[in-house]
Amino acid sequence: MEKSQRHVMCSGDSLSRQLPENETKINFPLNGAVNEFDRWLIRKLLAAIGYPNIAFQLWNGEKVELDKESSTATICINNRTSLFRLIIDPRYYFGELYSSGDVDVIGDLHTCLDTVYRSINKSRNYSFLDVFNKYRRHANSFINARQNIHHHYDIGNVFYKQWLDSASMQYTCAYFEDPAMSLEQAQIAKMHHICRKLELKPGQTVVEAGCGWGGLASFMAQEYGVKVKAYNISHKQICYAQEQIRHSDLSDRVEYIEDDYRNITGNYDVFVSVGMIEHIGIEYYHCLGKVIDNCLTDKGHGLIHSIGRNKPGLLNAWIEERIFPGACPPSLGQMMEIFEPHSLSILDIENLRLHYAKTLEHWIKRFETKREFIQIMYDKPFVRSWYLYLMGSKAAFTSGTMQLFQVLFTRSQNNDLHWTREHLYHSQTH
Amino acid sequence: MEKSQRHVMCSGDSLSRQLPENETKINFPLNGAVNEFDRWLIRKLLAAIGYPNIAFQLWNGEKVELDKESSTATICINNRTSLFRLIIDPRYYFGELYSSGDVDVIGDLHTCLDTVYRSINKSRNYSFLDVFNKYRRHANSFINARQNIHHHYDIGNVFYKQWLDSASMQYTCAYFEDPAMSLEQAQIAKMHHICRKLELKPGQTVVEAGCGWGGLASFMAQEYGVKVKAYNISHKQICYAQEQIRHSDLSDRVEYIEDDYRNITGNYDVFVSVGMIEHIGIEYYHCLGKVIDNCLTDKGHGLIHSIGRNKPGLLNAWIEERIFPGACPPSLGQMMEIFEPHSLSILDIENLRLHYAKTLEHWIKRFETKREFIQIMYDKPFVRSWYLYLMGSKAAFTSGTMQLFQVLFTRSQNNDLHWTREHLYHSQTH
Repeated sequence: MEKSQRHVMCSGDSLSRQLPENETKINFPLNGAVNEFDRWLIRKLLAAIGYPNIAFQLWNGEKVELDKESSTATICINNRTSLFRLIIDPRYYFGELYSSGDVDVIGDLHTCLDTVYRSINKSRNYSFLDVFNKYRRHANSFINARQNIHHHYDIGNVFYKQWLDSASMQYTCAYFEDPAMSLEQAQIAKMHHICRKLELKPGQTVVEAGCGWGGLASFMAQEYGVKVKAYNISHKQICYAQEQIRHSDLSDRVEYIEDDYRNITGNYDVFVSVGMIEHIGIEYYHCLGKVIDNCLTDKGHGLIHSIGRNKPGLLNAWIEERIFPGACPPSLGQMMEIFEPHSLSILDIENLRLHYAKTLEHWIKRFETKREFIQIMYDKPFVRSWYLYLMGSKAAFTSGTMQLFQVLFTRSQNNDLHWTREHLYHSQTH
Repeated sequence: MEKSQRHVMCSGDSLSRQLPENETKINFPLNGAVNEFDRWLIRKLLAAIGYPNIAFQLWNGEKVELDKESSTATICINNRTSLFRLIIDPRYYFGELYSSGDVDVIGDLHTCLDTVYRSINKSRNYSFLDVFNKYRRHANSFINARQNIHHHYDIGNVFYKQWLDSASMQYTCAYFEDPAMSLEQAQIAKMHHICRKLELKPGQTVVEAGCGWGGLASFMAQEYGVKVKAYNISHKQICYAQEQIRHSDLSDRVEYIEDDYRNITGNYDVFVSVGMIEHIGIEYYHCLGKVIDNCLTDKGHGLIHSIGRNKPGLLNAWIEERIFPGACPPSLGQMMEIFEPHSLSILDIENLRLHYAKTLEHWIKRFETKREFIQIMYDKPFVRSWYLYLMGSKAAFTSGTMQLFQVLFTRSQNNDLHWTREHLYHSQTH
């Protein structure tokens, strides 16, 4: 391979395959000649991540790969410092270095990440890296929780509007009754699916823990005639939701409250939480369980919709540091710490993993078309890190690393139940 | 209340309300005059079980109750020794004393047990009694497991034939798509429901852990064209199943193997286990997980159908001693010990609690009509203990003390999945 080719493959052009054409190419200085120690490190890295079918390309253009024919993508390491960082803590530094452009990917980014995730999931050598992971965690006390949520959700409503569904700004997994549905249709289908599971009836009272921009709360009030109190500690989201409801005819039926879920009081027929418990930390599940036990009526139903895992584990350290401080998707066993201390009875659990991959596909397409605008609002590393986060999340769902659980529950003594779940599938609306 | 009445209410007649009319009345000697200490003990017992709306009637006819108007039933304690035993360990001795006739119930037995279960579930005073419970447990090593299963399932096929469904001898929860279905219809619906969840396709290989009398295995082969290897350690059940298959045209597609689930070898597209894991003990879930991980193909599906609980707890000590040695229904959190160590991915969990109450209702009706015949085969304490066990089980499901979980799972990387669960509800047959 000629030197000119090497240079092209390692930096600028590789990026241009992911980015819009007018994206400026990034050139990084070479970092000394590649030596035997560098190659040995790369082989160790490949071993640690279970020998996925990807190639590594070093700053001099040299490739290290298992099998030329079957490599699905190439990860370019553009300088020696980055190699060392990747070796020390690949989970954290891959994100850091990709964001800064010190590491790049030639080929499809999703395919690359999916390949690596599948390989890591099968590998037994990778768990030692959790040692590093554990030091980068953000707790979720009352004050920290606000800071953590502010970090992510208060980036700016305009930013999220660029790529979320226009109808109800749902920043959670949609429900594709048909995979050809539009994102808008699938988000509405998701809300109907949740409302049907909860058996909402006009006049019932609902409390929502973690209401985002308020889309579900106003949908439930509008479509099912319930009264909703919706909690959230993201200031910008709550302001947005309050503003929306002020201009609607639902203001007497929906109340948005800027407060922590731990401060929920009152009694409600329904408890619902969509995409919140990933953020609260497993060590606070007993608090959430107490809140539910205190607020749910005798025949009340509840639903928790959350990203999850097949077994306990930590969120990718980079995502936890840069994107979602304090977040940790639970395994079902860990989720049971919410319900079991209070004998809450699980009625139904559904895994919508591939629906989240499809949702992310839609978000990514929209993000790509708005990339330039977002880069003007923020900067290039911000755009690259969000692009990686969205692509990495899609890969986490396609590779089976992450799950999406909807858990429906009620009080243990409630016998007022549907005989089957057929009513969930009668029609696409209620 | 007159003495003659008292005598009648405490022993013979109370029984006659539960038993066929020609049942012999049991007379027990009174056991000395009731004193203040006896009454104090009864009040302590009522407190320990959370003051349910039931009355206690002592051997002299004296009643102790909270509220005359609302008592749902009366528990007669026919002698002082029985009172002492009930105080020491009510969970265990209620069954023992009911079987022998030293304790009896006036009124509907199910209502009485349901009332007590609901009260215990709300009470915080009852858990100290687990101290006694823990000493009466049967482990499930290879040898013990055979003895434990022999104790229950080898009572005699003729006995179970008296009250199980005639079509396929299913001794597990049926699925009442419509609560008006017959037991036979609901057991067939249950098998279809399981097969649809497992997405059985002709030519697939299935392994069944704990196959009972072989009903599901032959049904899957007959209706869905799969090849089944079915394991069971109950000698009488396996002999029955082998005999049935010998006279059918399925003998090349169904193999019944008298062996422990821990000895399952080979690779299968489908793993299924209906009503077995309640018996194997939670400490052996890691073994079951390993068996599944070793035998399931890359795109394989599995289903575990099991009695469960809303939170960890021991089986009633009397049932564990007399009916189901070694049995312990798990909470969902405990069940996850099967799946999480192997990253098996939970796709769907359904709670069919009220279906088991309905199934038991059918079994009890049939048991009642065959009561005399069964008593000739065995004896009166046997009949009384089985009647109590069936009634107690129904109450455990109606009161929310026990659950019935169907857990569907697959390998974490399997993306060959249905988008929704609608296909489960298309028709009553496949």
